[in-house]
Amino acid sequence: MEILKERIRKEGKIKAGNVLKVDSFLNHQMDIELFSEIGKEFKRRFADAEINKILTIEASGIGISCVAAQSFHVPVIFAKKTQTRNIAGDVYTTKVQSYTHGRIYDIIVAKEFLGKGDKVLVIDDFLANGKALEGLIALVEEAGADLVGAGIVIEKGFQAGGDTLRGKGIRIESLAIVESMNEATGQITFRGDTVADGMEIQI
Amino acid sequence: MEILKERIRKEGKIKAGNVLKVDSFLNHQMDIELFSEIGKEFKRRFADAEINKILTIEASGIGISCVAAQSFHVPVIFAKKTQTRNIAGDVYTTKVQSYTHGRIYDIIVAKEFLGKGDKVLVIDDFLANGKALEGLIALVEEAGADLVGAGIVIEKGFQAGGDTLRGKGIRIESLAIVESMNEATGQITFRGDTVADGMEIQI
Repeated sequence: MEILKERIRKEGKIKAGNVLKVDSFLNHQMDIELFSEIGKEFKRRFADAEINKILTIEASGIGISCVAAQSFHVPVIFAKKTQTRNIAGDVYTTKVQSYTHGRIYDIIVAKEFLGKGDKVLVIDDFLANGKALEGLIALVEEAGADLVGAGIVIEKGFQAGGDTLRGKGIRIESLAIVESMNEATGQITFRGDTVADGMEIQI
Repeated sequence: MEILKERIRKEGKIKAGNVLKVDSFLNHQMDIELFSEIGKEFKRRFADAEINKILTIEASGIGISCVAAQSFHVPVIFAKKTQTRNIAGDVYTTKVQSYTHGRIYDIIVAKEFLGKGDKVLVIDDFLANGKALEGLIALVEEAGADLVGAGIVIEKGFQAGGDTLRGKGIRIESLAIVESMNEATGQITFRGDTVADGMEIQI
């Protein structure tokens, strides 16, 4: 998705530890016009699929999912991290190891909102080592629902998550796959880029 | 906002400790068509105001804010709870006491996204004791930005937060104000309801 890649090139900041900061438009400040285009692109890619629910995880998946849901006309459920007083005991739950926060947490979805017959699209902002996505897929499986696939805004193609899950037959549509990034130069290369990407080729 | 009140009457569950569960459409499973109507209603109520940013707090404020932002054509910023590796040190921060979770946490917003000249609408799903809203207002003040007001989906009118903040001159637009709720009968009364609410009055 070219406008997304342009935005990442322009505003993305590469930090130590393979961190790509895109908090000016994706996961702290949120550009809603861009989210709307992202939603339309997810819809275009999953146009062939029957989907009746979008599942995401708090916090940064929620905004993208809610705007994208307007292209799908389905409700969104967000998996919560750790149990709160307001969630009844009747939940699906699994454990997720966080790369960003360096700890293990529980994610939960109330059983009443996910079950047999549901056709679920999982949406998230990032896919890196795939632990959050694996957790969401585990909840879908525990619920006996059908997983249609996953729509990801930015995949770190140099981490194993995406390709490992594709290898298990999971359909993953990532709108921008970062193949490499260089902290020193600020250079970001996307999967599918050619050397001459962005230039006219003179033969 | 009548369609919202109807939804709360129909699906809201009253639990011990003044808890009103609306997680079938507001803050776990999310009804995006309803969110769109909520966004339009916020826009109608703040039609006179100049607004260039919406500020909310994770997690349940994000979805409503992102959909509402489509009526305002402005970006959304969500305040994060506790510091993470991905946020730089340059943040506004304040402490908030959580009623739901029974603990105190830090909320932060990166300084680069909020500052002098910004005209900020705060949006959240619930207003009860007002601690989260007070925290968001403190961040706006710390940033030197202008607070336009707050758009709240459900206010618990029997708790002090809303009226205390109105008393300080804060403009608060709550789309449904619960005046009382009865755990035993399931009865919910909204501010502005009359005894004959929903019935034709025969004179």
